[in-house]
Formats: sequence, structure tokens, C-alpha cells
Amino acid sequence: MRMYDIITKKKHNEELTNEEITWMIEGFVKGDIPDYQMSAFMMAVYFNGMTDEEMTNLTMAMAKSGDMVDLSAIEGIKVDKHSTGGVGDKTTLVVAPIVAACGVKVAKMSGKGLGHTGGTIDKLESIPGYNTTIGREEFFDIVNKTGLSVIGQSGNIAPADKKLYALRDVTATVDSVPLIASSIMSKKLASGSDCILLDVKMGSGAFMKTEEDAYLLAEKMVEIGNKAGRKVAALITDMDIPLGNAIGNSLEVIEAVNTLKGQGPEDLTDICIELATHMLLLADKGDIDTCREMVKDAIKSGKALEKLALMVEAHGGNAEYIRNTELFDKAQHTMEVKASKSGYIASINTEQCGIASVVLEAGRETKESLIDYSAGIVLKKKVGDYVNQGDTIAVLYTNNCNKLEGACKILEDSCKIREVQPEKRPIILRIINKFLKS
Amino acid sequence: MRMYDIITKKKHNEELTNEEITWMIEGFVKGDIPDYQMSAFMMAVYFNGMTDEEMTNLTMAMAKSGDMVDLSAIEGIKVDKHSTGGVGDKTTLVVAPIVAACGVKVAKMSGKGLGHTGGTIDKLESIPGYNTTIGREEFFDIVNKTGLSVIGQSGNIAPADKKLYALRDVTATVDSVPLIASSIMSKKLASGSDCILLDVKMGSGAFMKTEEDAYLLAEKMVEIGNKAGRKVAALITDMDIPLGNAIGNSLEVIEAVNTLKGQGPEDLTDICIELATHMLLLADKGDIDTCREMVKDAIKSGKALEKLALMVEAHGGNAEYIRNTELFDKAQHTMEVKASKSGYIASINTEQCGIASVVLEAGRETKESLIDYSAGIVLKKKVGDYVNQGDTIAVLYTNNCNKLEGACKILEDSCKIREVQPEKRPIILRIINKFLKS
Repeated sequence: MRMYDIITKKKHNEELTNEEITWMIEGFVKGDIPDYQMSAFMMAVYFNGMTDEEMTNLTMAMAKSGDMVDLSAIEGIKVDKHSTGGVGDKTTLVVAPIVAACGVKVAKMSGKGLGHTGGTIDKLESIPGYNTTIGREEFFDIVNKTGLSVIGQSGNIAPADKKLYALRDVTATVDSVPLIASSIMSKKLASGSDCILLDVKMGSGAFMKTEEDAYLLAEKMVEIGNKAGRKVAALITDMDIPLGNAIGNSLEVIEAVNTLKGQGPEDLTDICIELATHMLLLADKGDIDTCREMVKDAIKSGKALEKLALMVEAHGGNAEYIRNTELFDKAQHTMEVKASKSGYIASINTEQCGIASVVLEAGRETKESLIDYSAGIVLKKKVGDYVNQGDTIAVLYTNNCNKLEGACKILEDSCKIREVQPEKRPIILRIINKFLKS
Repeated sequence: MRMYDIITKKKHNEELTNEEITWMIEGFVKGDIPDYQMSAFMMAVYFNGMTDEEMTNLTMAMAKSGDMVDLSAIEGIKVDKHSTGGVGDKTTLVVAPIVAACGVKVAKMSGKGLGHTGGTIDKLESIPGYNTTIGREEFFDIVNKTGLSVIGQSGNIAPADKKLYALRDVTATVDSVPLIASSIMSKKLASGSDCILLDVKMGSGAFMKTEEDAYLLAEKMVEIGNKAGRKVAALITDMDIPLGNAIGNSLEVIEAVNTLKGQGPEDLTDICIELATHMLLLADKGDIDTCREMVKDAIKSGKALEKLALMVEAHGGNAEYIRNTELFDKAQHTMEVKASKSGYIASINTEQCGIASVVLEAGRETKESLIDYSAGIVLKKKVGDYVNQGDTIAVLYTNNCNKLEGACKILEDSCKIREVQPEKRPIILRIINKFLKS
């Protein structure tokens, strides 16, 4: 086999065999296939796409390029959840404890944030003592004992994806549905859970700018997962404005705790309830109404919050911070972003909010950047709210006062104020779940 | 500027500015832009093409990446000729002496053969003593004295093209009209001639398999050349069968000499007369009929043949070989390829003939391959000829007798015999020459 011929086939829109795809991925990981051939191939995929069969084969080849984690040491059904990334997305911190409180195990590996999107691992590490890099045995042990564990993605999960993604990132081949779908699903399949719920974001803060694109991506990922023998479903959710009010690591932990107390922002609460409900559905805990009731009860009873505290403790973290979020360090400098005129907030560009949070040092510009756990943004107004000129739209937090002005400018520009009240949009746009029982 | 953004623009089919293209080519030659980004860009060009403006800018940036040869030390108008490559294409050996005999200077740099297509430099080097690697001063001097010189392309002509072509060759991005056009024209423009005649081949032995594709390529190259201030025209010619009867280096020199004596094969003679005529037209030697008469007279009078002998002598070659081609070494082994049945020769796959000549060691498989100057093929029958079963279609020549069987098999397979006589096709398919005076 020659990589040249594989590129040529894809260029001419001919279907690649499983043998060709497997050979290519193995060769690329070993270093036998140079980056310059792989990037030409990826660009050809950008233009010609992949068939479902090719996509599934690519995903499996990438998953098998490293460890296929065996979660059988953990009793019961394991449910994973994946978000395609957004701004202010702290749903894992809310949903995992709820699902665990309902008796379904969550053994989850998460990533760090990069660019305008945050990462769950950074949020957890803002809790003093929380260790996200524990060994596999301890990971299994914590899930068996507490029902949940969220740790960093360990060394050898889908190394092919790691290498491919790094190349796509510098060759403008990230925004291809088959490549995004196989990238995400290779890691999810390698991570070993029985059921996977996908939260596919769409809007100004997401990869997928339109509902159609997001639906297409979701459909492909569900297809791949089900073909690989897992129970997979997806929600298409709105990321046209930041989720909840808080952006930034400890600010988001605090908001997650409030949500688990039943005092969270409406959009965040709604999305968390639906995500948790569908995770329970996948785990066969009953019909949708039963599952939703279980979720609401886990919040109301305080059991979910207690699960979060237990998980934090099990990872060496100080659970007092969960029970009393006043303990979190406050950033030294704050600035209020004011409304430039009166009217309704028509839109808040989510990506710009994410960029502003990076400016404030809450997120990473490059993989090497250090982050400030207490930095970030708290929105005081959301889309649809009426503001008078001079009202506070958001509060900025940082320990580097030089960054306030720049972030404030970005945030001001990201927020459009109009005379007419915009229509209210649902947070859950579409559902793909063939395991849905009515 | 970032290469990432340039790739993204091309991917989204947006037009690149001259600044962007120039920056990209300069950065690539310096090694600042890695191969993996350039190959992704090339694949995006394969899919989205380039505007005429982009193509011209790319060509100029590539031409300027190395020496822009200044031919002003040579008196008078200099005319160059370029063939897009074929099998049995020895036209330069015929046409350059004719044009020189008509008083128009030819200062030409040529390439070596690779794969199934031969190169003029190898043909010249089959003449004992001919030195294709002389310095620039001597090159100018020979042209001033004899009217023509054909040498190897010296070190620093369009190094960007050299580097780009090597990358395209391994990433399946060779067959893109804007990339082929800019590659060819960058070298031609850098080579300094005032007028350039392009011989764009189409058919089974050429890059361009259809007349439409060949016309498109020719049109683009003429456009680029004229935009760059040169007088450029193109002939689209047939390469659906090998040109003339001989394939292989000294065999082709002998055939060229015969053609200059007025005893060449009809197709080769016709195409050489037309190429030379259009070169004289570009050099303003009169209307097409006048030019054609001058060409025919240069052959008839023996002046063109004498020009070839003079050029060979000026390059240290033994001109006796031109005056008496019997002096050329004969290959030790020969084999006749026989007709498997009776009928008309319907087609001879040109690419397969080229491959058979490489098997016989007349051509190079890789850049490092050594070649056998006396090896090759002489066709005894061409498309349209009637053969009886067992008639000799071709004779194979090589010094490596192990290669005869394999080459014979390829040639047999490349030749289709049918009951019906095929229609005769013209050798010149189309002409693009806005300098044509009627």
C-alpha cells in the first residue's frame, strides 16, 4: 500500500477500505507516513468528506492506536458524556454528580481548555487539592466507592488523534465533520463507557455555527458509536450565548454548586436536567418522565451536591469549598462592563466572551500558558434582558489589572443592544436518541 | 501574515492577494513554511483552482525565487519552446536548428527525462562529447556565434518550483491546471527569452488526457506569459501515440537528423514544421505562409542540419555523429514485437510505450537511475497501418537482455488491433496564437 494512492483515491472521491484506513493510521502513528502526506489527505477529506463506513473505520483505527480502557473492574453500567466545547460550559460538574446520585456510574476522562473554550479539568483543579492525574486502579476504586470520578485524559488514549489533531490545527483542516466526529468518538470509544451522551453545541461559541451542521455532526457521531456497539445519543444545544453566567474556573465551580443547590441560572439548570435525564435513559433507568423526576429529586434532596463533595474528597480535594464556596480565593481586580445605551440585549458573541476570559488569564492562549483560577467573567445580563444605559452587563475578574481594559473592550463589542426584544430561543434544539422510551 | 490564514482563504475559495502569494513562496523557499502546510494548500488549490490573477502572481513569485536570466548579452530576439512532455518527443532537436537557420536565436535550457517521458538533455548527452553543463558566459557566446544552444537547466532557475514540485509529486497534487501552468511558466519566464512557444500535449502519453484539458492548460499558460510581458503562443498537439517512430536517446537523435534531412516520419515532420513556423511568427519574421516557407527551405537547403552540427561542435560534441549517424553505438540486444493478429492498428498506448522504454533502460525510473543511451524502441507500424499476424510492429533495443521479454509484453499489450481502420487524426489539434498574421 502507498499513501500516495490513498490520497489519490480520496481526491477522486473513491471509498477507502478498512485495510487502507487502518494501514494509514498505524503508519502515521509510527512516523512512516509524513505529515505532508497526511495534511494533503486531510484537505482532500475536507472537500470530499467520508462515507459512514470510512468514518467508523477511521474512528476505530484511531481508538485502537492506544489503550482501549477496560472499565469492567467498575460494577454496573458506565455512562459518559461529551460536550463539543463551549464557553461557560460547566455541565459535567453538575450532571456527573446527579447521574451518580441516581445510581449510574460515571468514570470520565476530561480535557484541559485551550483557546476560547474552557476545560473541565481546569475547573476541577481550581478546587484546592483536587488531583486529576491519579492512576487507573485508584480511578476504578473511586468510581466503585462514590459512583463517579472525573480525571484528566491519561497518556495513551487515541494517540493517533492527538497527532492528527495537532496537524489539522495548523493546516486549516479542523472544520470537517468526518474528522471532528472521528476525533471525538475515537477518544470516547477508547475511554470504555457503555453509554455515551453527546452534547453538540451550535452557535457563535461553537465549532458548528448552524443547527444543520451541528445536527449532521451529532448524527455522524451517534452512527459511529452505535456501529461500534455502544449506546449513544446526542442533544443539540445552544451555544449562541455563554452557558450560565460564569466564565472562568472557580467562578464556574461556584455556579455549578449553586445549580446543584437548585439556585443556578435557568439555562444551565435546564440543560443539566436534560443531559442527566438522557444519560439515565441510556442507562435504562426508566422512561423519560421517570428519569427526569429522578434527576430533579437528586437536586432537591441535596444528594447530587453531596456526590460532588464526595468525589472532590476522594481526589484529595478540600470538599469544604463545595459546601461553602465563599472559601474560594477572589481575584484582586474587578471591573464592571456597562451598557453603552438602553435597550434589549440582542446577542452576546460567545466566542468573544471566551476570548475576553483568555485575556483575563482564565484560559490558555497556548498549551503552555499558565492560568489564573479565580479570573473570569460573570454576566449580569443575558440575551433578552432590558438594560438602561450605564447598567452593569458583566463583571470582570483578574489578578492582572493590565488586562481589564482590553477584556472590557472585547466584551462591550461582543454585546449588541437593540430596541426590539429578541425572541426567546430554547436551549435544547434537537434530540437524537433512539433509546428514548415514551 | 500566517500560512494558516492563506490555506483557509483558499479552502473557502477566496482570492489571494499578490502580497500573500509572494510571502508564501518566499517563506516556503526559506523553509519558514513547513511542507505539511504547503501540501494542504496545494490540495485546496486542486479543489478550488486559482484565478488568472493568482496564477500569474504565483508564477512570478516562483520565477523570482531564483535567477531571472538576463539574455540581453545575446543579440536579437530570443525564442524559446516548451513541450509539456511526451514519448518520442525529439522536436527541440529539429526545431531549434531550423529556427536558428532562419536567423532567430534559440537560447534554451532543457530538462532530463523522468518516468515514461524523455528529456532533451539525455538525448543530447547521447552524442559523444556534448557538454550540457556549460557556464552562462559560454552559453551566451555559443548562441551569439551559432544562433542556438541547448543546455541543462542550471542550478538556480525557479528553486521554488523545484521544491514545490517535489512536494506535489508525493502528495498527489501534480494534476492541477494552475499548478502545472505556474510550474512550467515560472521556469520559462526565468529563462529569459522574449518569445515562448508552448507545445501542449494531449492524449494517452500526456498529463492532459483530453483536448479540453490541454486547451485549458495552454490558455492559462499563454495568459500568464502575456501578462508577464512576453510573446507567448501554444499549439495543442496529439500525444495519443508516440511522436515519430523512435523512442530512446540516440535513436531519437538519429530520427531528428533524418527529419532535418527531409526524411523523417510524417507526423514528426509536420509537427516540427508547425512549431518552427509559429516560433518564427512570434519573432516577427513575417506572415504564417512566409514563415512556413522559410522553415521548409531551411530543411531543404540543409542549413538546419548544419546548424545542429555547429551546435554540437560548439558544445564539445563530435559533429561527425550528426553527419553520419551510423557512428552511434548500437545496442547489443534486439527483439521484434509481432502482431498477435491481423487487422488495423487502432491505438498504441503512449504511456505504456514510455514505460517499456524505461524497462529497456532508455529512461529513468528514479532521478538516480543510470540510462543506456542506445536502448529504446523503434516503431515499424503506427496507428492506422494494416498488419498481418506475425508482422513486426516494433523493434526493441537494449544492452540488458533480461529486459527484453518484459518490455515486449508491455508493448504487445499497449497495441490494440481491430478490424476497422481508425480515422486519421490531425497531429496539430488547436492553435492559440494572437500574434498570427494572415
